[in-house]
Amino acid sequence: MAPHRLPVPPPEALRKPLSIPDRLLLGPGPSNLAPRVLEAGGLQMIGHMSKEMSQIMEEIKQGIQYVFQTRNRITLAVSGSGHCALEVALFNLLEPGDSFLVGVNGIWGQRAVDIGERLGARVHPMIKDPGGHYTLQEVEEGLAQHKPVLLFLTHGESSSGVMQPLDGYGDLCHRYQCLLLVDSVASLGGAPIYMDHQGIDVLYSGSQKILNSPPGTALISFSDKAKQKFDARKTKPFSFLMDLQWLANLWGCDGKPRMYHHTTPVIGLYSLRESLALIVERGLEESWQLHREATAYLHGRLQELGLQLFVRDPAIRLPTVTTVAVPAGYDWRDIVSYIVDHFGIEITGGLGPSVGKVLRIGLLGCNATRENVDRVTEALKEALQHCSRNKL
Amino acid sequence: MAPHRLPVPPPEALRKPLSIPDRLLLGPGPSNLAPRVLEAGGLQMIGHMSKEMSQIMEEIKQGIQYVFQTRNRITLAVSGSGHCALEVALFNLLEPGDSFLVGVNGIWGQRAVDIGERLGARVHPMIKDPGGHYTLQEVEEGLAQHKPVLLFLTHGESSSGVMQPLDGYGDLCHRYQCLLLVDSVASLGGAPIYMDHQGIDVLYSGSQKILNSPPGTALISFSDKAKQKFDARKTKPFSFLMDLQWLANLWGCDGKPRMYHHTTPVIGLYSLRESLALIVERGLEESWQLHREATAYLHGRLQELGLQLFVRDPAIRLPTVTTVAVPAGYDWRDIVSYIVDHFGIEITGGLGPSVGKVLRIGLLGCNATRENVDRVTEALKEALQHCSRNKL
Ligand SMILES: Cc1ncc(COP(=O)(O)O)c(C=O)c1O
Ligand SMILES: Cc1ncc(COP(=O)(O)O)c(C=O)c1O
Repeated sequence: MAPHRLPVPPPEALRKPLSIPDRLLLGPGPSNLAPRVLEAGGLQMIGHMSKEMSQIMEEIKQGIQYVFQTRNRITLAVSGSGHCALEVALFNLLEPGDSFLVGVNGIWGQRAVDIGERLGARVHPMIKDPGGHYTLQEVEEGLAQHKPVLLFLTHGESSSGVMQPLDGYGDLCHRYQCLLLVDSVASLGGAPIYMDHQGIDVLYSGSQKILNSPPGTALISFSDKAKQKFDARKTKPFSFLMDLQWLANLWGCDGKPRMYHHTTPVIGLYSLRESLALIVERGLEESWQLHREATAYLHGRLQELGLQLFVRDPAIRLPTVTTVAVPAGYDWRDIVSYIVDHFGIEITGGLGPSVGKVLRIGLLGCNATRENVDRVTEALKEALQHCSRNKL
Repeated sequence: MAPHRLPVPPPEALRKPLSIPDRLLLGPGPSNLAPRVLEAGGLQMIGHMSKEMSQIMEEIKQGIQYVFQTRNRITLAVSGSGHCALEVALFNLLEPGDSFLVGVNGIWGQRAVDIGERLGARVHPMIKDPGGHYTLQEVEEGLAQHKPVLLFLTHGESSSGVMQPLDGYGDLCHRYQCLLLVDSVASLGGAPIYMDHQGIDVLYSGSQKILNSPPGTALISFSDKAKQKFDARKTKPFSFLMDLQWLANLWGCDGKPRMYHHTTPVIGLYSLRESLALIVERGLEESWQLHREATAYLHGRLQELGLQLFVRDPAIRLPTVTTVAVPAGYDWRDIVSYIVDHFGIEITGGLGPSVGKVLRIGLLGCNATRENVDRVTEALKEALQHCSRNKL
């Protein structure tokens, strides 16, 4: 029996029009949408299983193969954010009892540990303070000691500002019958990465960083070795939505007719297609150079302000997200609030183990310009003058 | 060591501009975007943790409470499609060994069974041919026999065209210490549903059907009873991304400061906010009436064409997605292709157990107009004249 009147009345807050402020997004991501991506977001829907959509998905796959520098057949976009790609990797590659080695030098390793434990893996974290990275020797010790089936490393550790070197790690893992999983959410397109050449078995990245797309899709690719580990599973992955066999079919990676699995984020895929087209037009190498130069310029300007870069060794500084030590006597929250309130620029504080230690400034994709560096450093300068010291 | 040249060249297909055809989406969803929703999709990004975004999320929560007719605190949008909401429900409510009763009268029950089994639940499917629904008595037998902790029912069974009655099922479940989980992906906004009044413990729906938003967000709400079951868990859910405790915090449902969990689909949330605003403006009851009337008109027109509605009993026909028996001697694929090729209208065949048995026509949200009914029935009429019979 229906109630006489609707028990829950319509909310007043939804009677106001939506209003979105202008923001320059110079935190560690999301970044601003490139104009062409913005335009794609305003297009009308088509069916997720239409042949036009298959074509767009095919183009996305090729774009991912290019930005990842891989020829892997199993290359696709997951319907979710960076965390979803991480779960897709771990849900498919780990079975209960598997040994899983994790580089934990910031929040992303912590998240991999958390998920690995939920899945019943035997997780072995290699813990370092934020700012640290892993040498080949350290990794080899971990491999020898724990005999893992999988190693997790973060290429662009956006919570600490560190770029993990990747040359040689794939071969090393393979000598120990271990697969290499790399998070490039905050680095892909901004710093060189060669999936096949570097022997990376699973690589993933996000849409909302250097690619300047909205959050909601993430890029992922699996090597043949990774696929073999999946094929040898004794148990089904816990998730149907993240099951690689279904995803590979949906994305036309298995040579069979595509079957309905879930409804893909059609408009998000238009946007992703456009952001991949932009980086194809520019060329990966030019994109790497652009980030290197803009970030070097930022580092210079920050040092002119008397600020300290959090990562001491210039060789492992990320060319996309920069961490600045919070200057003594300041509350990082005051600085971040001042800059958004007075300049409409979003930067952020630290995350996970780097909270309270750093401010984070990202120059991502189309936001990586000298003009933006000037804007954010001017804003910082003024914030440092106006925010009261020693409130802590 | 970097290779001398990029081993994978830029793909040519991405050098062409993106081109999206005009489509009238009259399948079971996704549907076309409402003009105001389309506009929201073209807006620029802001930070996912900004206070403006918190306000939008708050408005979305209130909008969901209204369309669900619930006062549940734990009401939010998940960052994924309908399947993601289903997994969020099952990952959080089921623990290995739990007894799970599932109404399987089409594909959605099959999917719930699949996921329940992956999670290690003892799954008890109540299987019916597509077209069937569950009486209170049948459900009571299942409850008595299997003593489940959770019952899954599909309100709008979009693969068969059946609308499952819901009055009395919640109370019945609660008498047996069972929670009631209802899928309203294809019915919410198109047919009455009163979450609190009907004693539904978990209700979820999608964005891309009656709400006319892009796929990629889904609505979900948990009753206090459901929350208690979650709180009493002995194990963590397998997924970090779907963990209700994190999601409830991210959506400000737990009274604590929001913490970063994953990056939400900001632009998709703008769109969802706008589609909820539209239904608030129109009023739920008017939206229900609109679907009832447009679909009744469609049924009349189809019968004039000599076609048979697949669901015999008018009382359980879904007022959003209509299933038509494939007329004797036709291949459904020919009809569907003819209509998209000649009229730019997407309708679909069956899904799961209804494949080959039905054609499916959806009148969803802003697409539920007499004009669209005329367009699709004209197209069908012509298709039936031109597609060759007896090819099978
Ligand atoms: C390096 C890195 N990994 C993973 C993530 C998680 O991605 P998301 O927030 O899209 O889930 C981020 C996001 O900031 C990141 O910077
Ligand atoms: C009744 C019903 N449940 C669940 C789903 C699954 O939703 P999605 O495809 O968004 O994952 C659909 C989608 O068509 C549906 O109609």
